[in-house]
Formats: sequence, C-alpha cells, structure tokens
Amino acid sequence: MRTITLTLAYDGSAYQGWQRQDHGASVQALVEAALARLEGAPVTVIGAGRTDAGVHALGQVARARLTVSQDTATIQRALNAILPPDVRVLRVDEAADGFHPRFDARSKTYQYWMWDAGVLPPSVRAWCWHVPRRLDVAAMDRSARALVGRHDFAAFQSTGGGAKTSTRTVLRAGVSAIACGLDAGDPVRARLAPAEGRFVVVEIEADGFLRHMVRAIVGTLVEIGDGRRAEAAMTALLAGKDRGATGATAPAHGLVLVRVAYESEHAADAAPGPPR
Amino acid sequence: MRTITLTLAYDGSAYQGWQRQDHGASVQALVEAALARLEGAPVTVIGAGRTDAGVHALGQVARARLTVSQDTATIQRALNAILPPDVRVLRVDEAADGFHPRFDARSKTYQYWMWDAGVLPPSVRAWCWHVPRRLDVAAMDRSARALVGRHDFAAFQSTGGGAKTSTRTVLRAGVSAIACGLDAGDPVRARLAPAEGRFVVVEIEADGFLRHMVRAIVGTLVEIGDGRRAEAAMTALLAGKDRGATGATAPAHGLVLVRVAYESEHAADAAPGPPR
Repeated sequence: MRTITLTLAYDGSAYQGWQRQDHGASVQALVEAALARLEGAPVTVIGAGRTDAGVHALGQVARARLTVSQDTATIQRALNAILPPDVRVLRVDEAADGFHPRFDARSKTYQYWMWDAGVLPPSVRAWCWHVPRRLDVAAMDRSARALVGRHDFAAFQSTGGGAKTSTRTVLRAGVSAIACGLDAGDPVRARLAPAEGRFVVVEIEADGFLRHMVRAIVGTLVEIGDGRRAEAAMTALLAGKDRGATGATAPAHGLVLVRVAYESEHAADAAPGPPR
Repeated sequence: MRTITLTLAYDGSAYQGWQRQDHGASVQALVEAALARLEGAPVTVIGAGRTDAGVHALGQVARARLTVSQDTATIQRALNAILPPDVRVLRVDEAADGFHPRFDARSKTYQYWMWDAGVLPPSVRAWCWHVPRRLDVAAMDRSARALVGRHDFAAFQSTGGGAKTSTRTVLRAGVSAIACGLDAGDPVRARLAPAEGRFVVVEIEADGFLRHMVRAIVGTLVEIGDGRRAEAAMTALLAGKDRGATGATAPAHGLVLVRVAYESEHAADAAPGPPR
C-alpha cells in the first residue's frame, strides 16, 4: 500500500461541495470513483478542506492509499482523462504513510472575490460575488487585519460545523482592490473584465476555519466597506462572540480554497510533497 | 426616433451566435426582446460582428432605434435587469441617425485564447482552447505578422459567409504568451490558472473578417507552433488561396470579439460614442 496526495483545482458551481453526500454530486465522490477505476477496487480519499456547495478550489489537497504501481505522472494523466473538465488534478505526489491532509495541515488560505462596480462581467460570474456599490477597501483591510492572532471566532461560525472549539489562529488577513477594464494594461484582466470596475479580494490564512467563517467575515467586511457598520465594529464583534450580531453570510460562489500548507516532513523523502 | 448604440459583453457558450436564428437562442434576439420591453413595441438591432455559435464578445457594438426618452444610463440599467447574467450591456451611447455599426466600423479586433500546457484550469475552460503541447510562440508571432496588409484571404475563408470579395486589410496581428501559475506574481492570473502553464493569445485587427477567418488562421498557426508546418508556410498559404491547404478551423470557444473601432464623427456630438 502506498500513500499519495492529489492537489486539485475545481469549479464548485455544479457540486454539493467537497464531501460525499447522500444526494447530489460531490467532488470527493468523483475523485474516489476515478481512483477506483485505476485501482480496480473502492478507494476512499480524505480532503484537507471540506469546501461547501458552490465553493471552488485552486489547491485542495487529498490523500489516497493505492496498490497500483504507476508513477505519479501517469496517475495524474489517467485521473484527468476520467474526471470532468471542472475538476482537475494539478499534481500527484508520494506521501508518508501516516500523512493526514487535514490534521497535518499547518494552515489553509482562502480568498473571497467580489466585484464592486455596476456591471458584473460575464466571464467572472461563476466565481465572483457582485456587490454593486463602491466599497471602502482601506477600511475593510484595516478591519480584516484586526482578526490576525489567536481568537475565539464564535461570532463568525454557523451552527452544524461540529468543531470542538471555536478558537483559531489567523496568520494573515487582508483586503485588496484590483483595477480592471479594457484599458487596465493587462491582457488577462481585460479578457475577464472589459467593464470599468475592480475586483475586491479578501484573503485569509489560518490554522483552521469554522463553518462559514470566511463567508461570515466577508459579509461583515462588506457592511463596513459600504458604510453600514463602523470600522471599529470588527474588534467588538469578535469580543462579543455573538453570531446574531455579525453580518450576513456572503454567497458561496465568491469563495475559493487557494492553498493548504504543510510542514515538509510530512511528505515522503523522495517527493516534493504537497505544495507549500 | 433616436439612435443608440449598445456596447455588449457576452459569454457565447449558451448561444447559437449573435444572429437571430430559427432554432436556438441568439444574443441578438435576447437584446431585441429586452429593448422591446422598454419600447413597448418590436425593436430590431444590428450588430457590428456576426459572432458564430459559442464565440464570445467583450465589446460587440449594436445599434437600435427607439422612441423612449430615458437617458442612456437608465436604459443600460433597465436592459441589464432584463438580460441574463451571461449578456451584459457595458454602455449605451447616443449615435447619429445614419450610424451603421458594421458598415461604419473602421476595424474590429479579435483575440483567440489557448492554453498550451498539460492541465487546463477549470476557470478558463469556457473561453480557452486546450492545446496540450508546448507551442513555439515566437514562430507563431512571426507567421501572424506575415498577414498584415491588404491580401486576398480566400485560403482562410469558410464557405457560406456570403462576402462579395475575400480581400481584407489586416492592420495588426501577433501572438503572445502569458505565464500563469499560483506563483506568477499576479493575483488574477493565479485565481484563473493555478496550474503551471501559460495562455497563448492570437490578436488580429482588420477592417473586416471572412467567415471563420480567425479560427482558420489560428488552426494554421498552431500547426506552425507545434512543428507540423514550417514557419514560412503562412506566406505560401496566403498566396495559394486554397482553403483545403490551410489548417483545421480552431474551435469557437477560444474566440472573442474584443473591440469595434469607429471614426469619431459617426457618434452624435453630445456623446462619447462607441469605445475606440
């Protein structure tokens, strides 16, 4: 038995989320079915992040145990030939036997993408929340930075997450604006967003996340950004630990799991291991 | 009766193209239906470019004649409230009575987007052709530049276009590569394309285009880029005027109408006119 890790990117639009469900398609079930075809027997995969329905990933990490002897490049090609185009295996690595993608993760990074101008460009509508009013990004950025450190994030947790404690350590948090339009001087931005306007991106790295934590933080940041709440609100909300007091949960489709970071010792000696 | 221009962006994936069809949804029919709701009577629109099924637009220009007196910003908002999110009105301008979006166009610019590495990122799959082998972009760029000037493009024309002559003037043509990946240093590129790889983009500006002209040129450029044809082939193909000798027509979904340029006098004095 060997242990491998898959690094996966997916467009979550068509899925009930990462986790296998009784009803509806999940990314986990698709990946398990693809691996089972290679292995000729059922395979269980464990993912680092349980992304919700409609949430995307650029660097989800999953572990599987296999008996087949193909090299990692062959496994990657075979999986991509089986999986639909909205789920892609970016890399396959050998991993140490005891490696666990969730318990061994040092941190995860999520981004939340918004568009804060009048017309949402068609090419970004699947992964960008339209907030059609100008946001005060500097105020949102200062508010986000107030989250950095070890805190009880009970105010930003939805029920049903099953976490034993709501204390988490946020390593980085910030909000930035990215100008777009045909004349923005960058061909990729012009291709995506010919309309005058900009992306507003929230990025948070933490040692773990509670259920809907990023989306509750984003909902609150937007209310600070459009003036409905004072900039000082974030610190008070954190201290109050009251989910009823925070902003609405932002929609799933703006959220993306960007990266899962590991200590290098968890990867097998022979392999570069999951991406850092 | 007043004349207005609409500048439109659309994701063409779900449509039979710009032009109204007997079967299947077209962008023209959607825009006409939305305008008819404002006008309370049937409205005909004329577009600058007859984009084919599956082809996208960042700056299609269309003309309509209306009797309603709302200002252009109100018309834009009303249309975007009616149209589906894959068709967006980027601007509405007043235009001179005699303005014709196709006959008055000085030039049109198309781009064709490809991804020339092994794994196509999910977020770009709707508008980027996957060519899973490294292309020689410098050779493709030199070949594209051989098209600049006034030529008979019969070798790059599909039947059924109905053009009276196959002579067109290409004002600009070039091919460039755009590096991607999570570490490419640009947040928008990283969001789209976490996989190692790059976009290869063909851009052509001309006074007019024949049916499937850009896609036939791209199909030929790819065969130069992957070594199936010599770099000198493009000039010989152009001179030979033989459609059977050129490359396969590249798929529709990589193509996008970027911009239609006009002489400024075609716009009404009071308005900035269609974008240049």
